[in-house]
Amino acid sequence: MTGPAFDDPAQVTFEKIQNAARLIKGAVLETPCLPAPRLSQLTGADVYVKYENMQVTGAFKERGALVKLSSLTEAEQARGVIAGLTLEHTRGDLYRAALEATALGNHAQGVAYHAGRLGIPATIVMPVLTPFVKIAATRDYGAEVVLAGNTLAEAKEEADRLAAEKNLVWVHPYDDPHVIHGQGTIAIEMLAQQPDLEVLVVPIGGGGLISGIATAAKALKPSIEVIGVETTLYPGMWGAFYGKEVVCEGATIAEGIAVRDIGRLTTAVVRERVDDILLVSETDIERAINAYLTMLRTIAEGAGAAGLAALLSEPERFQAKRVGLVLCGGNIDPRLLSKIVVRELARDGRLVSIRIDNSVAGRVADIHHLLPASGLHIIGEYFLPVHYALVAAKGATLDVTFEAFDRPHGERIVSALRERGFVVRYLEIGERMD
Amino acid sequence: MTGPAFDDPAQVTFEKIQNAARLIKGAVLETPCLPAPRLSQLTGADVYVKYENMQVTGAFKERGALVKLSSLTEAEQARGVIAGLTLEHTRGDLYRAALEATALGNHAQGVAYHAGRLGIPATIVMPVLTPFVKIAATRDYGAEVVLAGNTLAEAKEEADRLAAEKNLVWVHPYDDPHVIHGQGTIAIEMLAQQPDLEVLVVPIGGGGLISGIATAAKALKPSIEVIGVETTLYPGMWGAFYGKEVVCEGATIAEGIAVRDIGRLTTAVVRERVDDILLVSETDIERAINAYLTMLRTIAEGAGAAGLAALLSEPERFQAKRVGLVLCGGNIDPRLLSKIVVRELARDGRLVSIRIDNSVAGRVADIHHLLPASGLHIIGEYFLPVHYALVAAKGATLDVTFEAFDRPHGERIVSALRERGFVVRYLEIGERMD
Repeated sequence: MTGPAFDDPAQVTFEKIQNAARLIKGAVLETPCLPAPRLSQLTGADVYVKYENMQVTGAFKERGALVKLSSLTEAEQARGVIAGLTLEHTRGDLYRAALEATALGNHAQGVAYHAGRLGIPATIVMPVLTPFVKIAATRDYGAEVVLAGNTLAEAKEEADRLAAEKNLVWVHPYDDPHVIHGQGTIAIEMLAQQPDLEVLVVPIGGGGLISGIATAAKALKPSIEVIGVETTLYPGMWGAFYGKEVVCEGATIAEGIAVRDIGRLTTAVVRERVDDILLVSETDIERAINAYLTMLRTIAEGAGAAGLAALLSEPERFQAKRVGLVLCGGNIDPRLLSKIVVRELARDGRLVSIRIDNSVAGRVADIHHLLPASGLHIIGEYFLPVHYALVAAKGATLDVTFEAFDRPHGERIVSALRERGFVVRYLEIGERMD
Repeated sequence: MTGPAFDDPAQVTFEKIQNAARLIKGAVLETPCLPAPRLSQLTGADVYVKYENMQVTGAFKERGALVKLSSLTEAEQARGVIAGLTLEHTRGDLYRAALEATALGNHAQGVAYHAGRLGIPATIVMPVLTPFVKIAATRDYGAEVVLAGNTLAEAKEEADRLAAEKNLVWVHPYDDPHVIHGQGTIAIEMLAQQPDLEVLVVPIGGGGLISGIATAAKALKPSIEVIGVETTLYPGMWGAFYGKEVVCEGATIAEGIAVRDIGRLTTAVVRERVDDILLVSETDIERAINAYLTMLRTIAEGAGAAGLAALLSEPERFQAKRVGLVLCGGNIDPRLLSKIVVRELARDGRLVSIRIDNSVAGRVADIHHLLPASGLHIIGEYFLPVHYALVAAKGATLDVTFEAFDRPHGERIVSALRERGFVVRYLEIGERMD
């Protein structure tokens, strides 16, 4: 699992990326790269999106996985490969993360899918609490799933042990020239599809994706800018790039790029070939996920939305430039997606949460009749219910969440309640989510 | 608003569709048509998807709108055009529908967008309760939005009046040869992108989309089958096709194809050139929306998912055939989408709703501590809260919704609660949604 004992960027070449492109043709989807006028309007840049979320496994990882698998000797292919989950930290505890973070395992699924296609035995090690559906999906690709350990670190220990015992090739998710060459094929496609691109914005996890893309893009078009994006919580490559000490920790929605141990080879390539690295906040990422969903009707996972998040956080930097965003993955739990949409509505004042205090004792039915009469749209109880919070000894308190046309409309409804004698205060996003 | 006084299918020709294709080139996106291996696995057909939801306004309607706008005389263009909402019925009342059904207005938005591009004045008439965001989006395209009437029918009356008064050209959403020729361009693209397609499955609302597609597809490849899809609630074209009396009514999730007054011209074309029409249920449509979301990471509105719904409801019919699905639109409220995902999870036994009866009086805190200890994963209160239903005089009853890994896991949790003395019963989807 330690990176290969090399860090010479000269190993990563455009010629090998061209070979990789020929190799994967027909086996990995040539995803579309399309103009996104609504994102252009939103950001002021001229935006194009490379839809890597349309790959069968929902992420670009298939490219590198297939190139690596194809590089193995017959004997190695016969013995088989092993891969695991490379995630560091997600929001909440592992139990919750395992349920929510379907991006957990993009690399493993890419390996499983193409190993299955090629008839190479693949073992994927996952923690015991991994949800049934994720296990089933990986098995469906033909991989053997080994459940081991209560944490990702413990699962990784077991993977190391198994790899040694059975002499399996460990497929590293990023710090491997074959993998990097595979990911670089994205840039060849993008510049064939949209030759006028001036800037590529590329999420950085371990650095494999941007290493390949920067190598190919600069070879094809030396004037092109390649800009990486990390989250403020995991700025590992940014630290290496600018020679700063950084701390990598915390719960992020972009678990696909929450990597503490960035690659050695990838770091060397990034230092040599990437122009800059930007950091984005969790809120920027949520806004970007929401924009992809509501404006482009496509699903971006947190890491997949990082490029657009960078445009949203520093729009002046990209003004009027022809920008290609790599939407690198779309594996996000649909329910998490829904929470993000709801939070965006709350930020816009179009979803309002209030607490009606004490005064409601015995008047719950009243309020039910009263609210709709004031023009209130109560969202289906099942999805976003009116939420009765029974607040202990002080009598009944009612929490209500409702949708308004816009912020002033919500304010009018609250005024109407207050005029009828209810004591109402607004709840913050954080309060509602506790 | 009445259809043109003609119903001769000879007016709709492949040659004119070819002209339309040249006309819209560069102004309307040539959307991708890609293989969908996971849908193939799900249905047993060899499935390809034409992503018309990637158009700027999220639906194919732009094609016909642009061709119609381009057909007008200079004088007509100077006076301007008018369009409205053509929706019949959606789930729930109008107020709710207007909030939820963002597909409401696909045609109007297509007209507004391309009229704006071409500098043609466009008036869009909407009911007064239309949500602010929808109004704003239409205005952003440069259209004048007139709010009139409390229902869609009343809005339409006002649109008729305005059209007569100001001598504006009414852009019909389907019963117009120009519009049909525009929609037919989809088939030219599909057969260029995937020449081996054997069957096209096309949603039918008023019939414009399938009339154009059938005409072009049969001209290019006489052996191809073109199959239409309607919902069981709005089987207007099916009735015309098979000479049966039908009733069109009810609340459907596929409001984009909930059309009572199918076109006269389109009916004639469909009778002559379409092979069959299938009817799909609301549940099939929900399953299809969910499959698009979770397997292809793309957003389908109800009407957009109707083609896949047909494959899911009659898989044997499409077995091993090369099937092209027209994912014709993606304008669905993200929160409605979330409800659908949740209902699918409930059908799979992965989301369980229970009512804990009477026995909870004074033990709410107990349950809070107790449930997680039994391995219960309570979904974030904000998104899918534990829902306290205060059931009137009979004391406290607790409704709890929780996520399980799978059905047996959910059953184990319920058993654990019962062993601790709680009286528990399962709630049906319908009960939870009231």
